[in-house]
Amino acid sequence: MLSFSFSVIGITNIAARSHVTLINFVLIKGTEWVGKMTGHHCLACTPGQMSADGSWNIHYLPLKLQHPVPSDIAISRSQNPKDIEQLAHEIGILPEELDPYGRKKAKVSLNVLQRLKNVRDGKYVVVAGITPTPLGEGKSTTVLGLVQALGAKLRKNVFACVRQPSQGPTFGIKGGAAGGGYAQVIPMEEFNLHLTGDIHAITAANNLLAAAIDARMFHESTQKDDALFNRLCPANKQGIRPLSAVQKRRLVRMGLPNIEDANQLTPEQRVKFSRLNIDPNTITWNRVIDTNDRFLRGIEIGLGPSEKGHTRKTQFDIAVASEIMAILALTTSLADMRERVARIVIGSDTEGNPVTADDLGVTDALTVLMRDTVRPNLMQSLEGTPVFVHAGPFANIAHGQSSILADRVALKLVGEDGYVITEAGFGADIGMEKFFDIKCRYSGLKPSAAVIVATVRALKMHGGGPPVIAGAPLKHEYLDENLELVAGGCDSNLRKQIENANKFGIPVLVCVNKFATDTGKELDMVIDKSLSHGAAKAVVSSHWSYGSDGAVQLAQALVDITSGPKPDFRFLYPLDLSLKEKIATIAREIYGADGIELSDEAQDKIERYTRQGFGKLPICMAKTHLSLSHDPTKKGAPTGFTLPIRDVRASVGAGFIYPLVGEMTTMPGLSTRPCFFDITIDPETEQIDGLF
Amino acid sequence: MLSFSFSVIGITNIAARSHVTLINFVLIKGTEWVGKMTGHHCLACTPGQMSADGSWNIHYLPLKLQHPVPSDIAISRSQNPKDIEQLAHEIGILPEELDPYGRKKAKVSLNVLQRLKNVRDGKYVVVAGITPTPLGEGKSTTVLGLVQALGAKLRKNVFACVRQPSQGPTFGIKGGAAGGGYAQVIPMEEFNLHLTGDIHAITAANNLLAAAIDARMFHESTQKDDALFNRLCPANKQGIRPLSAVQKRRLVRMGLPNIEDANQLTPEQRVKFSRLNIDPNTITWNRVIDTNDRFLRGIEIGLGPSEKGHTRKTQFDIAVASEIMAILALTTSLADMRERVARIVIGSDTEGNPVTADDLGVTDALTVLMRDTVRPNLMQSLEGTPVFVHAGPFANIAHGQSSILADRVALKLVGEDGYVITEAGFGADIGMEKFFDIKCRYSGLKPSAAVIVATVRALKMHGGGPPVIAGAPLKHEYLDENLELVAGGCDSNLRKQIENANKFGIPVLVCVNKFATDTGKELDMVIDKSLSHGAAKAVVSSHWSYGSDGAVQLAQALVDITSGPKPDFRFLYPLDLSLKEKIATIAREIYGADGIELSDEAQDKIERYTRQGFGKLPICMAKTHLSLSHDPTKKGAPTGFTLPIRDVRASVGAGFIYPLVGEMTTMPGLSTRPCFFDITIDPETEQIDGLF
Repeated sequence: MLSFSFSVIGITNIAARSHVTLINFVLIKGTEWVGKMTGHHCLACTPGQMSADGSWNIHYLPLKLQHPVPSDIAISRSQNPKDIEQLAHEIGILPEELDPYGRKKAKVSLNVLQRLKNVRDGKYVVVAGITPTPLGEGKSTTVLGLVQALGAKLRKNVFACVRQPSQGPTFGIKGGAAGGGYAQVIPMEEFNLHLTGDIHAITAANNLLAAAIDARMFHESTQKDDALFNRLCPANKQGIRPLSAVQKRRLVRMGLPNIEDANQLTPEQRVKFSRLNIDPNTITWNRVIDTNDRFLRGIEIGLGPSEKGHTRKTQFDIAVASEIMAILALTTSLADMRERVARIVIGSDTEGNPVTADDLGVTDALTVLMRDTVRPNLMQSLEGTPVFVHAGPFANIAHGQSSILADRVALKLVGEDGYVITEAGFGADIGMEKFFDIKCRYSGLKPSAAVIVATVRALKMHGGGPPVIAGAPLKHEYLDENLELVAGGCDSNLRKQIENANKFGIPVLVCVNKFATDTGKELDMVIDKSLSHGAAKAVVSSHWSYGSDGAVQLAQALVDITSGPKPDFRFLYPLDLSLKEKIATIAREIYGADGIELSDEAQDKIERYTRQGFGKLPICMAKTHLSLSHDPTKKGAPTGFTLPIRDVRASVGAGFIYPLVGEMTTMPGLSTRPCFFDITIDPETEQIDGLF
Repeated sequence: MLSFSFSVIGITNIAARSHVTLINFVLIKGTEWVGKMTGHHCLACTPGQMSADGSWNIHYLPLKLQHPVPSDIAISRSQNPKDIEQLAHEIGILPEELDPYGRKKAKVSLNVLQRLKNVRDGKYVVVAGITPTPLGEGKSTTVLGLVQALGAKLRKNVFACVRQPSQGPTFGIKGGAAGGGYAQVIPMEEFNLHLTGDIHAITAANNLLAAAIDARMFHESTQKDDALFNRLCPANKQGIRPLSAVQKRRLVRMGLPNIEDANQLTPEQRVKFSRLNIDPNTITWNRVIDTNDRFLRGIEIGLGPSEKGHTRKTQFDIAVASEIMAILALTTSLADMRERVARIVIGSDTEGNPVTADDLGVTDALTVLMRDTVRPNLMQSLEGTPVFVHAGPFANIAHGQSSILADRVALKLVGEDGYVITEAGFGADIGMEKFFDIKCRYSGLKPSAAVIVATVRALKMHGGGPPVIAGAPLKHEYLDENLELVAGGCDSNLRKQIENANKFGIPVLVCVNKFATDTGKELDMVIDKSLSHGAAKAVVSSHWSYGSDGAVQLAQALVDITSGPKPDFRFLYPLDLSLKEKIATIAREIYGADGIELSDEAQDKIERYTRQGFGKLPICMAKTHLSLSHDPTKKGAPTGFTLPIRDVRASVGAGFIYPLVGEMTTMPGLSTRPCFFDITIDPETEQIDGLF
């Protein structure tokens, strides 16, 4: 037996910028050097304990700015990210609340919410944009630039909460959603590939439900009543037919007796219990895959001989289009997630009643697959500030926001004087409206401000400039000064988006995301017009080129407009309006339409969903993001149009009704030369190139 | 600026069994308590340094044996696994070689191989089984029992290397491959769900290739020669058409000039380069999904309007049936993986030439998706010994073995006097033969011994007992003593499997996996007959009931038979035999067939693969595991039969040809009442029940 007496004889290495340190302990036993121990520790505070004024003691990563600005991947690789355990420690996450996934990303336990329940939430800010060109106007980049400046320059506690990108487009079209230039989430390849597996878990859960639907229909159609019941409720050695928890819930929902032994059911009750009688024509639950696979947009299944001719036409969607992704984004706890999963409606039975995931018996199995996903994923910005990357639902058929849970945990971690910056997908007419009316409604969180990102390029387009087409060279209007076009864009689209935000009672900060071709007069005009159209502040920002240095004014403006009392946040519509009235309200108030026109199918669906009891759900519009109207060619702020509603669908588990305005592709494709032709990996260094 | 002076004033907690300790340091600055720091450290050794005799200083987890033996999940949950970083430290893995995924599993860097390149490999042992009943005879459980006894009782350095199970069956049929009783991998739910995402990465890579195939065929068929070339080799602003690395490789393979600018190609060369001309009828690359979804066994794709009528019939397989899984299992480095991925043959062109993943341009993209998978996943046994869980290819259409890389890393970590125990799927006629002829051939590793697991139950079946059917009660022959049936099984199937192992020059240890109904006379008979049929040793083991205590004799027997000089390991066949001769050799020597009979299709394929240059690959038989013959009803050791070869397929990337003997299902289904009905999760405690 060895004794445990030892001494620490020295610290061999201390890497410190603030008073948070990385330490190598050297241990001796007697006089003999026996080992060392590495850790990081703040010598001035205990884990989770902040400085007296509540501010974090955080080590910011200095930028080595270069011009011209290198490629995103080159910038990402030039920075050495902190060990994720160090970052977690710096922002007051306890070791037992952190599950590292490798060294640069980690999942954070929801126990933080309980531990910090008495801490007041920080300020909650959404970044949205004017109606973009097909090239995008830099919302994600602005989120990152803003948090880098709030943190590294203004020394605020600040969190960015962003979406996890789909892996499909990563190998199809160049791009990524990690920001860009000197405002990014790092390491970029970890951000874009697999992350901690949340999307893979969603795929698994989604497809288990899909497999259960078709298998159940098959077994119901190939088995007589007795055989079906005997298999669903097998007798044990004592002759008892014990019901599982999910089976008992179905009994109760059907108005059948809540019993332990299925033998007690009458023959009629057995049939009613055993047969879901799913009407195959009503099934809205598709399979998903996180790959751009256009040949799965329309498929026929069940062609194998073992399925005995029970074929069905269906489709695959990209994984992030799964309702389960929307559930992850909107859920408030694992218990809430389980309830939402149970409520998922996959279609109707032959009598028109909704059939749910709970009827199919898969609720808990899906929740088991999703167990780890509820914990937000911690990463860091290029300057070492914390970022949650959590959930990434589609911005058209879903609400396009990162998770409520990440925002909640972040709001507690930053504390009352801190900031949580999140992003609303697409233009403000879609993303911001859904952020307020869906996400904030389910979370109960009240935002403090909205940042609306504009570019001179997009404003010129709205002012009447020629079409901007991805891949084609920009026309001269976009490269030369043109104050008339800028004015036109400010007075139409930008004005409308600012007014829209103000309808929710929220102050607007306009961020002009600066490009090299912008002239001083153009930029000044956007600032002036923003203010005259109702923005609380408007500033030019150049975070893409300069990181936090370029966004200091933006950050300061945000601090200024959020320093007063909380704004009087209000929803656009109450839930007890009819579905049709809710849709019409959004169309009139936000899009500027005269009204809506429902197709017969849309009218039928509205009636069905209302009859099925889903009329109180909020609305999630599936509309193009390239115009305030339904017509992507109409720029500026169109008026005098009627919004056509082609169809209406329900995501009952996620908790919204989504009207379809035009066709929505839920499965991207691969072009003739996808970007995977340029992706390379060095097997020795594991260095990846060509991803961006 | 704060100073860094501090003292360690105490150790608040030490959890120690050996001299490896978990320590909480308490830190003070001046006189003030400022924090604490938790770590684990061995006070007698530095990280990665073993004791003078090379043995690990490992903390074994004591068992609290109960009888009757509780459920697998109850046993798993009753044990508190070590933090994976502690285990890694105990077995000499450096902190920088470890990527934790949560607290109980981690990936281990392949840098271990380089660091320990001068350490001699440990002893390498494969666990196989006699032809099993449909209930399974406990191979995985024996692997775990054996390592627990070698470690916790005999104090050997020992690693178990096992397969990662598919998630599909986890939600379909009760069961799991984590062992059972008091011989398991823990935590069982982490083992069975997602793990570190390797199978999800395989799915992503497999399906990106599948999407690329159909998209390429579509673009080739809808574009004229010029348009296709222009898109595949777009001109930049200078008019140059730069070729990517993967495009240059295709040029070289086609015998075209190795150029930088595609403008240099003649019109004919442009067409030849641009058109893969894949013959859709030859495509063998299926999509995969890790869900039991029988309705995807036969599908038609391309039915969406955007695919313009380019439909095709195909199928989904379960993810672990992907050739990429077999590649992961057989690869020896990331560089080797990239080469194998490049070589994947997805079908032929209209002239009969093989079309590869490299031709499609996806080699590096797939390798990027697979980057993290090459690192083995570290977990632990119920008694705290290390386990690698890495790769899990099908045992019929693939070779059914965990990874070469896990074995290699483990063999270095255990050192010359240590043991690495791995498992061969299915019966020894399939699993062990493939282990020797495929896995050991690619790894270059030489096994020291084979353990063949037998049960009295399975021996009675082979001796003429009535059929054993899953779900049905066992007949009395299996519950009462019946020496005649036992003798029959020993003299037929067990004898043949022992003889087969000896053909490879490998000594056999027969492990009789003891059941409560076995009688002393029955067990004695198996021991006696094993020895007379050529086993080096034979022992009864009861690890399921007693963990390491029950497997001490088994472990000691293994030590005994491996203590002499290395056996003279040899392959069954040389690679330069023709494909037909190789197949016939396995059929005759291992299965006991008189010969083989090739269908016309099989004959055609053999000729095609030989012509295409794949005739030197080893053979991976796809045969039922329920008989030594092709007929699952023929038990014992059948003779006087001809093995019919229905078809022959190639996994060129993985590196084997697989003849199909009968139908092989590559997509399981869901029954009327899948086990997900019984799976529950408590959302507060996150406790999962019903998985096993």
